[in-house]
Amino acid sequence: MFLERLPGIGEKTANRLAFHLLRLSESDLKEFAQAIVDLKSKTKYCQVCYNFTEDDLCEICEDRKRNHDQITVVESVLDLISFENGDIYQGIYHVLHGRIDPLNRVGPEDIHIKPLLNRIKKSKSLKEVILATNPDMEGEATAMYIRNQLEELKKSLKTDFKITRLGYGLPMGANLEYADYMTLRKSLENRNNF
Amino acid sequence: MFLERLPGIGEKTANRLAFHLLRLSESDLKEFAQAIVDLKSKTKYCQVCYNFTEDDLCEICEDRKRNHDQITVVESVLDLISFENGDIYQGIYHVLHGRIDPLNRVGPEDIHIKPLLNRIKKSKSLKEVILATNPDMEGEATAMYIRNQLEELKKSLKTDFKITRLGYGLPMGANLEYADYMTLRKSLENRNNF
Repeated sequence: MFLERLPGIGEKTANRLAFHLLRLSESDLKEFAQAIVDLKSKTKYCQVCYNFTEDDLCEICEDRKRNHDQITVVESVLDLISFENGDIYQGIYHVLHGRIDPLNRVGPEDIHIKPLLNRIKKSKSLKEVILATNPDMEGEATAMYIRNQLEELKKSLKTDFKITRLGYGLPMGANLEYADYMTLRKSLENRNNF
Repeated sequence: MFLERLPGIGEKTANRLAFHLLRLSESDLKEFAQAIVDLKSKTKYCQVCYNFTEDDLCEICEDRKRNHDQITVVESVLDLISFENGDIYQGIYHVLHGRIDPLNRVGPEDIHIKPLLNRIKKSKSLKEVILATNPDMEGEATAMYIRNQLEELKKSLKTDFKITRLGYGLPMGANLEYADYMTLRKSLENRNNF
């Protein structure tokens, strides 16, 4: 059965879903099936930032109210959604769709780094690139690789913009007692005047 | 049975511990019992920082190699142990033994804030106080209260030292996808040049 093959869905949930579908009217079922067929054909990458979109540009890149001089680089669309759900960021994004991960044979060419560099070459008023890859080994390596590429780009273009990385430290609501020492060390290094 | 009253120990574990104790020799048992009796009578507060100690001063306050011009203020000895386990900090501490928590009727007078201020009054070369209370409501309120007290102290003593707070942000190994928006917001605010 197809439902059982979906991630996180076992036999019991699959049965429950199947019985729910059986209770739907035929027209509802057709609509649902069509939506599934359309999912892949209608979903495209945004031509600028590689977010998912049904048009050429995603909603964020099309939004004139957002700050187009600030680009946050994330590994996946799910990370982008995290920022958007928080309503904490007014700039735009660039989605890499992956991370440099030599153990799994993912190199810089396999993720959307080149389009990022091309995009920045064309941009005239860029002020900041925020490297928001995950705070682990591969995310860190990816951020460092992109940082070096951007520094070279700055030199060759004779332009300047900030390159920043998300702050590391204690997450909100954390308990020092249970914090790992790497996080504690970061929170000490990144302490702020108060 | 006494063992069952210990935190985190249920009936089964209590039985297992009891059977283990039964297997010990009488002299081992007596030694163990004496250690428990001594625990309370021998353990004192360090006269300077309120860490636990068997002497007047704790090992950290007595250590001449540590930086006595940098004081980290923590809520509990367990937090101090977190820092010490990491081997990431060379300064000394001040343990509040609590936090300001009006809902549970804990005010500034109920924790060791006054001894901290007295201690700082006597110090001649203090360079920094790091407020390392937990990143939650009560910890934040406690840090703010102490900050204000320290600012007044600075004015009245006509001296100067830094007051800092641990950095907040993404913990190491975190995944942006699952980060709460408060933590994401902090990691954006606290982003660093990279």
